[in-house]
Amino acid sequence: MATIDEALAIIRRGTEEILIEDELIAKLKEGRPLYVKAGFDPTAPDLHLGHTVLLNKMRQLQELGHEIMFLIGDFTGMIGDPSGKNETRPPLTRAQVQENALTYQKQVFKVLDPKQTNIVFNSQWGDKLSAVDLIKLAATHTVARMLERDDFHKRFTSEQPIAIHEFLYPLLQGYDSVEMQADIELGGTDQKFNLLMGRELQKHYGQKPQVIITLPLLPGLDGIKKMSKSLGNYIGIDESAEQIFGKVMSISDETMWLWFELISFRSIEEIKELRDEVGNGMNPRDVKFLLGEEIVARFHHVEAAKLARENFIAQFQKGRMPDNIKDFKLKVRDNEPLSNIMKLTDLAKSTSEANRLIEQGAVRVNGERVLDRNYQIELNKEIILQVGKLRFAKIILV
Amino acid sequence: MATIDEALAIIRRGTEEILIEDELIAKLKEGRPLYVKAGFDPTAPDLHLGHTVLLNKMRQLQELGHEIMFLIGDFTGMIGDPSGKNETRPPLTRAQVQENALTYQKQVFKVLDPKQTNIVFNSQWGDKLSAVDLIKLAATHTVARMLERDDFHKRFTSEQPIAIHEFLYPLLQGYDSVEMQADIELGGTDQKFNLLMGRELQKHYGQKPQVIITLPLLPGLDGIKKMSKSLGNYIGIDESAEQIFGKVMSISDETMWLWFELISFRSIEEIKELRDEVGNGMNPRDVKFLLGEEIVARFHHVEAAKLARENFIAQFQKGRMPDNIKDFKLKVRDNEPLSNIMKLTDLAKSTSEANRLIEQGAVRVNGERVLDRNYQIELNKEIILQVGKLRFAKIILV
Repeated sequence: MATIDEALAIIRRGTEEILIEDELIAKLKEGRPLYVKAGFDPTAPDLHLGHTVLLNKMRQLQELGHEIMFLIGDFTGMIGDPSGKNETRPPLTRAQVQENALTYQKQVFKVLDPKQTNIVFNSQWGDKLSAVDLIKLAATHTVARMLERDDFHKRFTSEQPIAIHEFLYPLLQGYDSVEMQADIELGGTDQKFNLLMGRELQKHYGQKPQVIITLPLLPGLDGIKKMSKSLGNYIGIDESAEQIFGKVMSISDETMWLWFELISFRSIEEIKELRDEVGNGMNPRDVKFLLGEEIVARFHHVEAAKLARENFIAQFQKGRMPDNIKDFKLKVRDNEPLSNIMKLTDLAKSTSEANRLIEQGAVRVNGERVLDRNYQIELNKEIILQVGKLRFAKIILV
Repeated sequence: MATIDEALAIIRRGTEEILIEDELIAKLKEGRPLYVKAGFDPTAPDLHLGHTVLLNKMRQLQELGHEIMFLIGDFTGMIGDPSGKNETRPPLTRAQVQENALTYQKQVFKVLDPKQTNIVFNSQWGDKLSAVDLIKLAATHTVARMLERDDFHKRFTSEQPIAIHEFLYPLLQGYDSVEMQADIELGGTDQKFNLLMGRELQKHYGQKPQVIITLPLLPGLDGIKKMSKSLGNYIGIDESAEQIFGKVMSISDETMWLWFELISFRSIEEIKELRDEVGNGMNPRDVKFLLGEEIVARFHHVEAAKLARENFIAQFQKGRMPDNIKDFKLKVRDNEPLSNIMKLTDLAKSTSEANRLIEQGAVRVNGERVLDRNYQIELNKEIILQVGKLRFAKIILV
């Protein structure tokens, strides 16, 4: 059993904010398994590495003996967008929710211990809620308080419409904490307002308020924006070992250290040692191998991780990929032809040679074959452009 | 049967706004009994003359053959003020609502025809409403739209709190129109926003929108502020014939004409004739007698009205109250002693005489005996100050 201090150190790692830490200490001192709430959207069960920042913290709390409540917010999901403004958000049926939940479970149990995880649906109490209950809930907060939430504030001041039911959703999310009697709620920093609602409503309903723990948002492959499916800068939990390993290898060294802090299970001491070794001349690429292997092992298997590494080396290094591939940062026009980029990076001597190489299937971007001469390389993202087994360039287009 | 034009003329009389009149004409042309909604608060069943502006319009519509829906808003009344800020508004029990409803009925049937009046409670559908239904209702309108309502706008800009459930109440009131399939909704000018909600929600739920008819607010006995119980400037429907008659006699001539327009059942032509007669020298007091009798007859009986008039004359005129009592408009200090006012109006020669008259019970204000020498006459209000059976003065203190 961890001491309170040890538990605190584990909980603190990589968190953005613990509110209120003294209350957390008091709860830990009670010596009972704490109820840890974390809410998930029922519409998008395709988890990516960004979600695992949260899942890892849940796992750590599980290892400290606490009870994880994996909350699927299906109640509002089954309502959809009642204002009808957002056609991409049709109401989910109960069957769809169940199916999504199974997909979730399959994914989250790659990180969480199934035995200590309770999958909870908020429709369980939401469906029983009457209009009167909701009116009483709505009476607990003011319009001004709700407009403090960052996105509401921005929309209100820029005169973009906010439908009234949108004010009810944070209250309903907060009310979940009351029904679940949550001791702790975890969420991204962008969820802080909603997590605080839970605290306030618990107090209103005579419960001890939950401690809220916010976690930073994981930057995506680009190292700049938060990892998200819609930005395409993500690693899906369900991707193949090769895909995951290759994508980890594509991130910058700086991003790598951030990822170590936020998603690696290595101790803070181990990570510091790795940093020191790189400082003493170790190739950062070899440290990235360790990170790639760890992540692949988590979602597949340690054997799969080794294989992914070997395949990667076979593809890039057995073909004598130089230790230090040349870096290019190129300013390009709109729709710059791939052939031009190949010429600029010395991978082809002429447009016709470049196009011939593309047609022959000799050209790869991040290891993926490119057969279309109109292929567009994404801007502001480091990629490896490769011709045959021997010639490589690391490129950022701006 | 009235023609469309005749019906329109009757409906138009004394209304502030008909929105949209063309739609009203179309509905009248359908030739069926229209559903006319008017909402009443379940907490204050003590109706006064101010309410009868609305009740009279309902009565006129009844006489035109339409179906009156007297809506008692008990659904939100039974919730009370869930924010707990307003301790004077505790939730009503179902028994209290029923009791209040009976008191209402007893009162409104002095104006309305019971056979053509449906008493409706919105708890009938409100109690069945789920949180999901309310969320969908809330999704139909934006925060910005709700803040257009005058009182919300004022409170928001002056940073006074608005609890979120307050945004739900106008929606619920509007939803009543949907459930009732109202063709017309009546209300005071201060209710226009809520009446419009009904129109908008009916459209949203695929119904033809109700026509809204707003009625001006009746000025109270003071002729300035709107009649209300809390301001004390009212005539209660349940007051005695003598009280009602006396209070009508206390209003100014100007207010009298406004009351004729808003609450008399006399035709517009008859009222014009009365005005002309006063223009030709008739004493306005005699016209006021007609108004007093009409109002007493409505809430009591035509015999009671005659008796009230005779008693009033016996009290004021049999004591040879001069036909033209002297008028005084006096500018007074704070807490001006009654004795001074008596001296200024020639009702007493000295302070000591004035105080003696008060002690002897010889002094009356609007027919009510005054025994307290510290009695304060209300400012800006015409009153009759009387000493004994013979001496009178009509006074306005400013």
